[in-house]
Formats: sequence, C-alpha cells, structure tokens
Amino acid sequence: MRALVKTAPGTGMELRDVPVPACGPNDVLIRVHHAGVCGTDLHIWEWDAWASNRLKPPVVIGHEFAGRIEKMGPEAEAEGLLDVGDLVTAEGHIICGHCLQCRTGNGHLCQRTSIIGVDRDGAFADYIAMPASNVMKLGGIPTEIGAIMDPMGNAFHTVLEGDAVIGSAVLILGCGPIGCFAAGVARAAGASLVIASDFNDKRLGIATAMGAHVTLNPGRDDVSTRIRELTQGDGVDLVCEMSGHPAGHAQAFAAARLGGRVNLLGTPSRTTEVNFARDIIFKGLTLYGVTGRKMYHTWHVMQRYLRAGQLDPMPVVTHRFPLEQIADAIQVIKDGQAGKVILEIGS
Amino acid sequence: MRALVKTAPGTGMELRDVPVPACGPNDVLIRVHHAGVCGTDLHIWEWDAWASNRLKPPVVIGHEFAGRIEKMGPEAEAEGLLDVGDLVTAEGHIICGHCLQCRTGNGHLCQRTSIIGVDRDGAFADYIAMPASNVMKLGGIPTEIGAIMDPMGNAFHTVLEGDAVIGSAVLILGCGPIGCFAAGVARAAGASLVIASDFNDKRLGIATAMGAHVTLNPGRDDVSTRIRELTQGDGVDLVCEMSGHPAGHAQAFAAARLGGRVNLLGTPSRTTEVNFARDIIFKGLTLYGVTGRKMYHTWHVMQRYLRAGQLDPMPVVTHRFPLEQIADAIQVIKDGQAGKVILEIGS
Amino acid sequence: MRALVKTAPGTGMELRDVPVPACGPNDVLIRVHHAGVCGTDLHIWEWDAWASNRLKPPVVIGHEFAGRIEKMGPEAEAEGLLDVGDLVTAEGHIICGHCLQCRTGNGHLCQRTSIIGVDRDGAFADYIAMPASNVMKLGGIPTEIGAIMDPMGNAFHTVLEGDAVIGSAVLILGCGPIGCFAAGVARAAGASLVIASDFNDKRLGIATAMGAHVTLNPGRDDVSTRIRELTQGDGVDLVCEMSGHPAGHAQAFAAARLGGRVNLLGTPSRTTEVNFARDIIFKGLTLYGVTGRKMYHTWHVMQRYLRAGQLDPMPVVTHRFPLEQIADAIQVIKDGQAGKVILEIGS
Amino acid sequence: MRALVKTAPGTGMELRDVPVPACGPNDVLIRVHHAGVCGTDLHIWEWDAWASNRLKPPVVIGHEFAGRIEKMGPEAEAEGLLDVGDLVTAEGHIICGHCLQCRTGNGHLCQRTSIIGVDRDGAFADYIAMPASNVMKLGGIPTEIGAIMDPMGNAFHTVLEGDAVIGSAVLILGCGPIGCFAAGVARAAGASLVIASDFNDKRLGIATAMGAHVTLNPGRDDVSTRIRELTQGDGVDLVCEMSGHPAGHAQAFAAARLGGRVNLLGTPSRTTEVNFARDIIFKGLTLYGVTGRKMYHTWHVMQRYLRAGQLDPMPVVTHRFPLEQIADAIQVIKDGQAGKVILEIGS
Repeated sequence: MRALVKTAPGTGMELRDVPVPACGPNDVLIRVHHAGVCGTDLHIWEWDAWASNRLKPPVVIGHEFAGRIEKMGPEAEAEGLLDVGDLVTAEGHIICGHCLQCRTGNGHLCQRTSIIGVDRDGAFADYIAMPASNVMKLGGIPTEIGAIMDPMGNAFHTVLEGDAVIGSAVLILGCGPIGCFAAGVARAAGASLVIASDFNDKRLGIATAMGAHVTLNPGRDDVSTRIRELTQGDGVDLVCEMSGHPAGHAQAFAAARLGGRVNLLGTPSRTTEVNFARDIIFKGLTLYGVTGRKMYHTWHVMQRYLRAGQLDPMPVVTHRFPLEQIADAIQVIKDGQAGKVILEIGS
Repeated sequence: MRALVKTAPGTGMELRDVPVPACGPNDVLIRVHHAGVCGTDLHIWEWDAWASNRLKPPVVIGHEFAGRIEKMGPEAEAEGLLDVGDLVTAEGHIICGHCLQCRTGNGHLCQRTSIIGVDRDGAFADYIAMPASNVMKLGGIPTEIGAIMDPMGNAFHTVLEGDAVIGSAVLILGCGPIGCFAAGVARAAGASLVIASDFNDKRLGIATAMGAHVTLNPGRDDVSTRIRELTQGDGVDLVCEMSGHPAGHAQAFAAARLGGRVNLLGTPSRTTEVNFARDIIFKGLTLYGVTGRKMYHTWHVMQRYLRAGQLDPMPVVTHRFPLEQIADAIQVIKDGQAGKVILEIGS
Repeated sequence: MRALVKTAPGTGMELRDVPVPACGPNDVLIRVHHAGVCGTDLHIWEWDAWASNRLKPPVVIGHEFAGRIEKMGPEAEAEGLLDVGDLVTAEGHIICGHCLQCRTGNGHLCQRTSIIGVDRDGAFADYIAMPASNVMKLGGIPTEIGAIMDPMGNAFHTVLEGDAVIGSAVLILGCGPIGCFAAGVARAAGASLVIASDFNDKRLGIATAMGAHVTLNPGRDDVSTRIRELTQGDGVDLVCEMSGHPAGHAQAFAAARLGGRVNLLGTPSRTTEVNFARDIIFKGLTLYGVTGRKMYHTWHVMQRYLRAGQLDPMPVVTHRFPLEQIADAIQVIKDGQAGKVILEIGS
Repeated sequence: MRALVKTAPGTGMELRDVPVPACGPNDVLIRVHHAGVCGTDLHIWEWDAWASNRLKPPVVIGHEFAGRIEKMGPEAEAEGLLDVGDLVTAEGHIICGHCLQCRTGNGHLCQRTSIIGVDRDGAFADYIAMPASNVMKLGGIPTEIGAIMDPMGNAFHTVLEGDAVIGSAVLILGCGPIGCFAAGVARAAGASLVIASDFNDKRLGIATAMGAHVTLNPGRDDVSTRIRELTQGDGVDLVCEMSGHPAGHAQAFAAARLGGRVNLLGTPSRTTEVNFARDIIFKGLTLYGVTGRKMYHTWHVMQRYLRAGQLDPMPVVTHRFPLEQIADAIQVIKDGQAGKVILEIGS
C-alpha cells in the first residue's frame, strides 16, 4: 500500500510502498478515506527539536483520519459492536488502560500513551490498524469531517473543560484551525459572547464564519481595552489559549476576570515569565492544561453536535490535496494562509 | 481604647489611644479577646513595596481576631441571629454583595473587597466594628482558636479546592503556619499520604505534629526523587504551594502527577519562568490561585472540623504576647522560628 | 396606592387602596411597571389547601415584577450600586443570609425564606419595597421581560443544574410557561435534542416556537417508544419534570438513560409510588428537587442570555391585562390556553 | 476443580467437580484464595423472584474474591502489566467498553454488563478466568481483604458520590456489612459526625467499631428527633440509604437537611410512596442511585485507603467457612447475626 513515511532523520517525508499493517486480535483494519494534516505533521516534516527527540524513523505519519473498516481481529469481532463496512474515525492516542490516569477518567494522560503517526505507524496511508476500543462509528458524519474530529476534539476539550461556557464571555487567543473550531463550539455551547483574537485577518475571517461575535487583531486593536469595554469592565469568564506564545499567556491572564478560567492548548516552544501573585493568586484564576481529547466524553459530545447540526466545521477546511501532494499541503500550512488541510486518500 | 496604628508611612506601628469605632445599623461592635499576627502584618510593619502602595495611614492594623459582641446596630439586631454576649470571629474581607463575583459564589474575589487592618481599621485594638453578615458565632470554639480561623481558613481553602484530597497523596510546599494547618486539614480530610517540605526543621516538626506522614528538607533531601519513591513513580495528586518562591513553583509542577492539581496560596514577590508545554499542558495540570476563604463554605467546614475535634490547631501556636509587645511578636516572626503568634488583648 | 389584596380566607382577591410600603434603611422602593401572574397566584385566588395553610391575610399578592427605583433607604444608598431611576427586577425570596444554606451557596433553600406575595406584601401593586440585595438592574432588558424573570429563572435552574445539558437529549415534561421557557433555555444552552411533551397542543406549539425539536402528546403518542427511537435506544440524558403529576414522574424515570438526570420542578399535590430498585438504583439516576432560583448564579446567566439575544421569551407571553382585570387573568390561566400572563401596572 | 454451582432452578447450590475455565487471549486465570458471600448469593440460594428471572443455570456462583494469577492469555501477557504470581482481586462487572455509559465515565452502568456469579461463571471455585482489564493487583492488601473489596467498594461509592462527605453529618441507614463499611469510610473521609441506624444491636456494635460516632435503634430511639438534636436542627448533609426499605426512604428524606443528598444503595423489593413536593422539591434534595463501583475511581481510592491503613475493615468480618460449608455460611447470613462472611477456598 501507499504510505507517507518519515524514513530517516531530517526534513520531509517519502511516499513509499509498504506492507498493509497486521490486524491483531483486538484490532480493526481501516481503509483510510480522508486524513487531516496537523501542525504536528509540520513539526515532523521540518524535523524540529521536538520531532527529532520523539520520533524513531521509519514511521508512517498522520494521526487524523476517517475511513471504512475492512477487516476485524477475532476478539474485536466477538464483541459484536463494529462491523466490516462501518465508516469510522478513531482516537489516535492508544493507552494502557491500567495506569492511575487510565483508571480514574484521565486516559488522555495515560503514562504509556502511544500516538499514531508519532510513536507508531499512522494514517497517511491506504490502511491503518487500530485497536477496536479506539474506533468510533461515524453514524452519518461524512469521512471528510470524521478526518478532522481529532483536532476538533481538542477544541471541544478546551472549550468545555470546567463547565464554564454557558452564558459566558469567551476569548479565543489564536485562530489556527483549532481556535476557529473553538469559536464554533463556544457559540454552539451557549456562550453569550465569543471574542477571537489573531494577527492574521484571514484566520479572523474564518473565526467569524464559525460564530465569533467579535474579532480583534492585536496588530491594530488594544485587546485588553476592547475586552474591558466588551465585558463592562469585568473581563472574560473563559480564555481558550490556542496561540502557544508567551504574549498569549500574558493576554490570557490580563483578560480573564477575577475567578475566571484559562484553558491552555497552544504548546509554546519557550518559557513564559508569570507573575503568579498578581495574575493567578490575587485573581483567583484556574488554569488547565489541555492534552488530547477526554476519552471518550469529548468524542461523545462532538458526535452529538455534528449529527445534530449544531456545529458546521466546513468553513475551517480551506484546502484538499491527494496523498502525493503532501509537500504542497505542508507548504500552505507554512504560509499561514490555510485553515484545515485535508488529504484525500481513498474511498 | 487601645489600638496598634500605622500612623504614617515607614517602619513600625504605634500603640495609641483612639475612639471606639462607630457601630453602623448593620454592624456589631466586638470586644477583641485574641488576635493573630500574620505575615501581612510583618509586611505592613516593614512598610514594603506592597504595603506602601496599598495602605493609607492612619489605619488600625490586624485582621485575625475573635471576641465578644458588645453592641449591635438596629438592623443587625432586628435580624435576631446574633446577640450581645456571643463569642464570635469574623471574615475580614468586607464585600459589596452586588458584583459578578459576589453574585456567583466568589465573594472572596469581590471587585470592591475592603480588608480590615489593611483597607480599613482592624483588630489589633480593644474593639472592632464589623458588618453582622461577616460575623460567625464560635459555638464553643475558644477565642484563642477563633482568632486564627482566618489563616486556618486559607489552609482549608487551599486543601479542599477541587475535591482532590480524599485518598490522595498531598504535598505541602512551605511550612509556615498556613502550611502546617494545611498538613492537619489534609490528614483530617482523608488524604492517604501527606508530605511536607520546608528548609526549616522547626517548622517541619510542627508539620509532623499536625499530621504530615513524611517531611522533606530540600537542604538535605532530593525532594523530586523522594516524592517519586513515595508515590510509586506517579507523583502527587495535589500540591499546596505555600512557599511563594519560584523554586516552589518548579517543585510543584515537577511533583504533581499527570492530571494533578496545584493550589497556589504563597504569594511570590517576583516572577517565575514557567515551561507551560512541559509542565502544565503535556501534564494536564490544573492550577488554582487561592485568595482568602470561600464565603462561607470554608468557614462552615472549618467550624465543623474544630467542633468535632477533627483538627487540633494548637501545635501551630508557638507564641503569645500582650498588645503592647507587638515589636516582640513581629521579631519572632522575622526570626523564622515561630509558628502562629497570638496577641492577648482582652477578655 | 392600588394593590391586589387577599383580604381574608376564601376565593378571590380585592383591588384596594393601601398605603405605599415603608422603605427601610437597606431597602429600595420600586414603582411596579409589569408583573407576571403565576400558578401560585391561582392557588392563592382559589384558596386551596396549600394557600390556606401558608398565607396570613391580609397580604398583597404577586411575586414576579419589574419596575423603576423611586426611593432608596440610607444604607442602600450608601452602597452606591443602585440609583433612583434604575429599571430593575428582583428575586422574590428574601433570605436570612446566616443559616447553613445561605452560608454555603444554597440561599434559595434558606431556612427563613420569606416570599413576597405569599409571606409578605407583594408586587400586584403600584409600589413594592425590596431589600437592595435582592434587586437586579435590567440593563436594557424591557420591564415586560423583567417581570417574568422569576419563572424564567426556574427554567434556567431546572435545565442547568448538574451541568448535563451540553450535547444532551433533553425531555421537557409539561409545557406550562416554565416548561416552554425550559425548551428555549435547553436549546440555547447547547442541547442536541429537545423533546417537549404535553397533552395540550397549544402549549406544544409554544414549546416549538421556543425551540423544541420534537413535541409529543401522550394523548396520541407512545412517549416511551418515541423517545427510544429518537435516542437510538439510549433514553434521554436529562429530564426536566415540569408537570408535577405522578404520571410525569413515571415517564421521567422511564425516559431517562442509565446514569441520566431528572430535575424536578413541578410540585405534585399527591404522592407517587416509586420503584426505587428498578427506576433509580439499577439505572444509576440522579434526581434533584428544584426550588426557586440559585441566588444569584441563575439570575446572572439569565441576564446574559437575555442581553445577548440567546433566548427570546416573548412567544410564551400570550395575554396582557391591566391590574383591574385580575379576574380575567386568573380565568385564562384556569382555562389552560394561556402561556404567560402579564399585568400592566404602571410606567 | 471444585465449584459451587446453581445447577437448576430451585433452592440451594451444589459443590461440583467442573473443568477449569478457559483463559481467553485477553484473560487471566486466577487461583481463588478467599471469596466473600453476599446478600445476592442468599437471593440466588433461595431462588427468589429476582434470581429466577435473572440466572440461567448451570452457573458457578460468587462475585467477591481475591487470589493469585496462575496463567495469562497472550494479549494480556503482551500488555506487560500483570504477571503470573500476582495477588489480585477483580471488578466483577464485565462491561462492553463501547456503549454511551462506558464511553462517558459510567462503565458501572454499561448497557451490556455481565456479572460474574450471576450472568456468567463466578468465584466460588478453585479457579476463575477474568478479563485482564478487570483485574487489580492487591499490592500488599491480604487476599482475605481483597475478597471483600467488591462490597466495600459499594460503600466507598455510596459515601463519596457527590463530594459531600468532608465536614458533613452523615446518616447510615441500615448496618449490614456495606453499611458498616460505609461508617468506616465516612469517618476516614473526613465526616464530622457519623450516625448509624439499624434495628439490630449487634450490627450497631460493628458500626461503632468501624467508627460511627452515634448509633440509633429505631426500635428504641425516635430517630428523627435525635437527628435534629445531633445536628442543631439542620438535619444531616448526607444519607447513605443501605436498608432498601420504604421506611428507610421515608427516614432518609426526613433526616436530610435542606439541600442535602441521599445516596441510595439498598435495593427494595417493593415500591415506596414518595411525597415529592414536601420531601424532594421543597427540600432541594439530590438523590442518587448507587450501582456497583465507579470503574475504576472507586477501586483506586479504596486501594489507597487500605494500603495507608485509613480503614480497617476487619471488624466487619465475623465468620469464615471452607467452600464445603456454604450452607452454614448462608445460614449465618439468614440469621441476621453475621457481618461479612468469607469462604476460605485456596492458597
């Protein structure tokens, strides 16, 4: 089968012909229809510090996908809950099920997490084998959307953690694809005011299309002043920090109201100086670090939202490429003008 | 009446003869029996940057106290819930009751908080007038203990926020009086392992007397290694950061388990460099800044604990002085060998 | 001033000329613009068992209202947070602020609650005096809507309690005004499926106008079967029981999914036989009894929703009468064809 | 191997020689050391209405046990987290992992739950095969205690659900083994007052040994009056209903304070008349039906408590029998003088 493989340390990926993966007793083999390209894939392409420390080539890249079940291992089949032919997506974090985190509702923080497309072979390929327990039926959601439920799930996790969104003023800092999804999720989940901030006007346009009431561009707007005006001086109830920049952290702490919440998803590449007394303790803030998707509460709510039409993620999808054009896909992401980029692999 | 007054900018306080405070329609006038001396009072004595920015002399100092109701305003009396002669303590944060925070269960973060002994006249005096709504009957708790329920309440707030203590491994970073109270609260609230850390062995001794299972001294012990050993490699479920030092923050983030919680009470005087990606986001941590006491959930639980004998705070009390010896009281705190210091004012 | 007074035991109310109420030090005096007529007022009119046990005539009736501040007591004025001329509504439960419930975030369950229009003089009058702490500025919400925020608040409380609404299938049992409000709240708060059930098609029409996806009439529909179909056999996540009938309880327990939640607002006049083993324990259900509005979390979220236009309650308002026509107002409620009925009192 | 088998409809069980169970790819085979006898086993022995509807003989009885891993299936072995020789216990509810409940943190309410000793072969035998994911290492807890962690887990679930125990007044209604465990759990989890009620003085003695502060016998005591006295008229914060009697439900609703919580574990054999208006709605109560153990949060906390010595369950264990004397074991339970009864099976 075809697969995009990081064959060795260094820049780029190679389209290779590799064997179809083995399907273990608890696994299902999935024919990949669509896959999403993520910022993580860009890091892997560019072989930055994180990637070179984490990946052990050769490895098939790609962790966001949806497709059709082609084959089932005997134990998975015996469960009787999935079938050959089902259209499915899957959680890409494969977890141990036994550690403290897995046992107490935090499987997304499993001590032995293995991520497809990073720690083991991934989804930029004609086929992928997944444990049946990681697989979710699409139930009418198109595979193109199924392929981006992984990052959309990050947005749901970020917006919903802490039960702070209903009736709230929400600030989205950073309008990459996940930030734009978050604007839509916050709006659909009952936020009263959704403010999106980014330096990139194209991204702000997508955030507006997803439901942001107000967009701010720190290149033009005095963000803190505008937020005070928009919230009668209170500040926002919830900040979704998607930028991963120290300036985003500073903005988040300044914008949050007394007793507010900051859910942090953007992963910075350097440290931030934090004034804990002024910004966290005297303000009574709650901070929460977002990793992955709650397994599987996040997926459940997301499925409901997509099936009920409460959230239309399509404004975020800006580009589609065949598997062979991965270099083009990577390039549009690097150019900063893309929303979500999708690989069309099979059908 | 006698009162310890910050009469003007600069070091020290003066014992003065001042008028007994007026008792407004919603107030009660309280004869002070005992008062606690706090690190905040030391900052005020020394007139550090925080104090010189915040206080507007002249102001009577002191915010931790208990005593007897001597007089009641007509509206307070009409409520029929307090009586002259009642032994009481009081929450020292006087709040507006109307702002977003007051209206939604976060009165401790009121936008218009006025703190006794800081923003208005306090309790190092023969009498203090307090809004009846801030007053709590002691119901059998001695006034000496009533006088330290304000800082003990900080400890309850820090340990209990997030419902993370039952069955948990808890790390107390910093064993000043509030850290030592926290060791006792954590033990009594069902923690399975209470670890206390401080550079000062005297304080570690008090923490042990309050119930810590294990004490660590970073001057001697490799704290991170010991915590890993004590928790089978998982890390602790809950960190109570009471030190207010950047090194304490670093230790807190390193010690917390994946998905753990760090409640921060110690107020640092400078910034901390935080590696958000490694320490907060990938670990899925929750951070919470602790200000004051939940009004009045914290007080309610604390009263129950004290009345039921679940917590004996007396090992923390190391010194008692009459009002006149405030200079001695301040000195033993500066020397770092004191637990809680109490002023004996009246009866 | 004019006032509708229950002058003595027995049916009806009288329009009387009575003195303008005194405005105490902590009170504001409000010129009533609009008032809502509630099922409770019908019970009082008819002098049923509940009313005759609870009310001590003479008492001015009415607990849902909005109007303009005409005068302020000196303590209320000194707070500086309300002003003569402010358009306001008010929470009608006047609470002690000192009991266990008041002190721990459950003021709506205060042991000494006094309800306007029931336990003390109410709002079907030209003026009403209210404690300033019960008053909320409308901030742009019309007084006609302000006058129905008390029952709308019941709906918010019922829908939002338990943080179970986002992404949920919600069943509203009983489509009186509060049930219809609840349909709108559930929809706006991110429910994925809102099902409303009532025997009265007119009410179902209002529920649809408020946002219900599906309406069921137990006179025609097999409610349990339809709910199973609509939820892929799971049952609903949240039931809002607004009917107050034993049949509603049975329907609620049958419709709720394993691990679901039933929030009960409708107050039955007789007992219900409950099969705890089958319906509550083996299903792992949570039941919650709804009284009043969370003070003031419910009000806060409701204000946000109304100001942001997330909820338009006007489809529920079907009738308006002047104060003099109270008998007509009561009659349309008795006829069962009314949604919310409003008295136009002043301006 | 030896096994106690319900061979056919009717009273009793038979000790039979049966084949050692097969160990599937994801299973471990466990040599049973100790097993607990439960009220459920009594229902099965007596073949009551529930048992005759649910069981399909022949089936090996017994669902509470601990022992040693003797053999591992290949997939279980490949995980590398359990080993032959490990001393273990296991959750007896085998769940699908795919349904809404399994996916959202309520695996104990799985739509496809299969219970060992009820729906499939159980633990009153020399060997039992269990899915590796249901198995927990004892880590120093003796197998005799491991064998009763299933019912002890019910007690943890009942006491801890709702985060209502710290600083609370807790009423345990019904002092069978799970009620007695609950007294100990509540005490260790920071309850300020633990009241236990039962008609049987022997059981009340065990509850006292487990930590109840006060015991009440409804045959002698006016329970409602005593509870009011013990709680200064407020009522209790949390009721753990373990009796399963309509009288227990009535007592629970009467004893709970305004805004209190009733967690119901005792499974009644008939219906209860409930006055929802007076007892649930106007009191603002929360009711919760307890099924099984939270998988695996309950187990995690329980392991911590047992390993830390926070709870000593041994006062509850009153009888031990070899497998052959099952009839004696059943008899002492029927006599109502037993606490927990243990079968000593192997080593």
